Amino acid sequence: MQPDSTAVRTYLLQLQESICSALEREDGTGRFAADDWERAEGGGGRTRILSGGTVFEKAGVAFSHVVGTALPPSASTRRPDIAGKPWSAVGVSLVIHPRNPFVPTSHANVRFFIAGADGAAPAWWFGGGWDLTPFYGFEEDAVAWHRAARNAVAPFGAQLHGRFKTACDEYFFLRHRGEPRGIGGLFYDDFDELGFVKSFALTRSVGDAFVGAYLPIVARRKATTYGEREREHQLRRRGRYVEFNLLQDRGTLFGIQSGGRTESILMSLPPLVRWDYGAVPKPGSAEARLLEVFLKPRDWLGGRP
Amino acid sequence: MQPDSTAVRTYLLQLQESICSALEREDGTGRFAADDWERAEGGGGRTRILSGGTVFEKAGVAFSHVVGTALPPSASTRRPDIAGKPWSAVGVSLVIHPRNPFVPTSHANVRFFIAGADGAAPAWWFGGGWDLTPFYGFEEDAVAWHRAARNAVAPFGAQLHGRFKTACDEYFFLRHRGEPRGIGGLFYDDFDELGFVKSFALTRSVGDAFVGAYLPIVARRKATTYGEREREHQLRRRGRYVEFNLLQDRGTLFGIQSGGRTESILMSLPPLVRWDYGAVPKPGSAEARLLEVFLKPRDWLGGRP
Repeated sequence: MQPDSTAVRTYLLQLQESICSALEREDGTGRFAADDWERAEGGGGRTRILSGGTVFEKAGVAFSHVVGTALPPSASTRRPDIAGKPWSAVGVSLVIHPRNPFVPTSHANVRFFIAGADGAAPAWWFGGGWDLTPFYGFEEDAVAWHRAARNAVAPFGAQLHGRFKTACDEYFFLRHRGEPRGIGGLFYDDFDELGFVKSFALTRSVGDAFVGAYLPIVARRKATTYGEREREHQLRRRGRYVEFNLLQDRGTLFGIQSGGRTESILMSLPPLVRWDYGAVPKPGSAEARLLEVFLKPRDWLGGRP
Repeated sequence: MQPDSTAVRTYLLQLQESICSALEREDGTGRFAADDWERAEGGGGRTRILSGGTVFEKAGVAFSHVVGTALPPSASTRRPDIAGKPWSAVGVSLVIHPRNPFVPTSHANVRFFIAGADGAAPAWWFGGGWDLTPFYGFEEDAVAWHRAARNAVAPFGAQLHGRFKTACDEYFFLRHRGEPRGIGGLFYDDFDELGFVKSFALTRSVGDAFVGAYLPIVARRKATTYGEREREHQLRRRGRYVEFNLLQDRGTLFGIQSGGRTESILMSLPPLVRWDYGAVPKPGSAEARLLEVFLKPRDWLGGRP
């Protein structure tokens, strides 16, 4: 079956809407503004941003549909046959920076890529996933998060969850720090192995499950009391987020290199960030335990149902 | 004449000392801490950091001497003959983030690189320069800065200042923003054309002139009254600094890729930074004039002596 780009686009626009609505409900006061844009080379998008909410200090949920006449080499090292060919990418990407340091930052992305052809069948694939970046570790949250991830992909194959979880741990690892960015979740890319209909259904399942995975954690932690110490720790850890996004993240670097819309690509950056030279948490503190214990990749579900 | 790495190293250690002392005097209360480190693969360094000073919110002055057994390709595209050869780099790099938004951020770097050989004469070169990143434009400061730059290199050739100024404007340009990082100054790399003795003398002249170029500007602006609006503008512009350093700066990327000491490389990042989606200064404001008028590359000295 030929891939149906229009159906994917329609789904993604709905997904953006429903995620924004759910986040607004959880926030209580913050509202998403919409910024529509077009790209001279073709395509465009709708960036939605909530700034200065009660719960969410900054949340960006971006839909984009970008087309190009020649695929940049950075996007196609695994598929040399389509380098330089016309391409089109449609996706929703979101990053949420909560105000309260006990609420984790989260990121999700679902995307569809199609390239090639001159008469031949096009190459296409889906990618997606979500990952969680806590500043303080709560086992209950980590287990719930990974359980939601497993449930989202389980109907599509018994092996997928383990594969996507491992890929997520590997992808969100800051090589120059020797640190995981967070506790991971799901990550897949270049995915076409189930055929278009099922690969699309998997991607919908991942996209649709995000809100149900994240918001219960937000609800549980958003009223936790915190002070300067926790805020400072959060702002420093956000520095790692910036480092990852600008030094390593493939989506960010591809967007920047392919002449994407800078402000939409960099909406992922946190509202306020600190860098303090040589800052290391006090041994034995909750801040130290985050890296020493909590962020170690592990099987959070173990034998749990 | 064979290059004398030891003399360069000795000079750079003295330069680090004298710059730190001058900055401490200007700050009044802040003091530089010293962090000595060694690298398992060879070499090491001394990173000096002043945090939370009266005038300087964060200032880092780093000496490093790094040796490697195989030059990474990213360092040698212009010199394919030395790719994969043993190499050694010694340098001083500094970034100063003042507290008052009317005081510009500044950066300077002088470095010496030597590589190659197996019996053959080694390839070596100097690099260096300094550049200024104001948040508010003052013509008096820009003229004085560029005059000091011209004076530092004038004894070594009439063409050098124009060449190094243009190279600086080109290097410190954020491609994804279509914006200069600041008003430039001097930038050179891969410099051996005057032979070792004169190329080293040029580099000393550039290194030695930095304090005299920067501190008078600091002294002139450090007591200027400012409020939330100016501070917010400063923190947003610092975001551009982070973007440049992590997305484009060759020294940063080479350091990160070659397994350099992360904390020393990233000491350049500002202490506190904001990213606000779609933030644009009010038309006609001083903040708007910075980009629209002041940061346009131009001949600041004109016919001035």
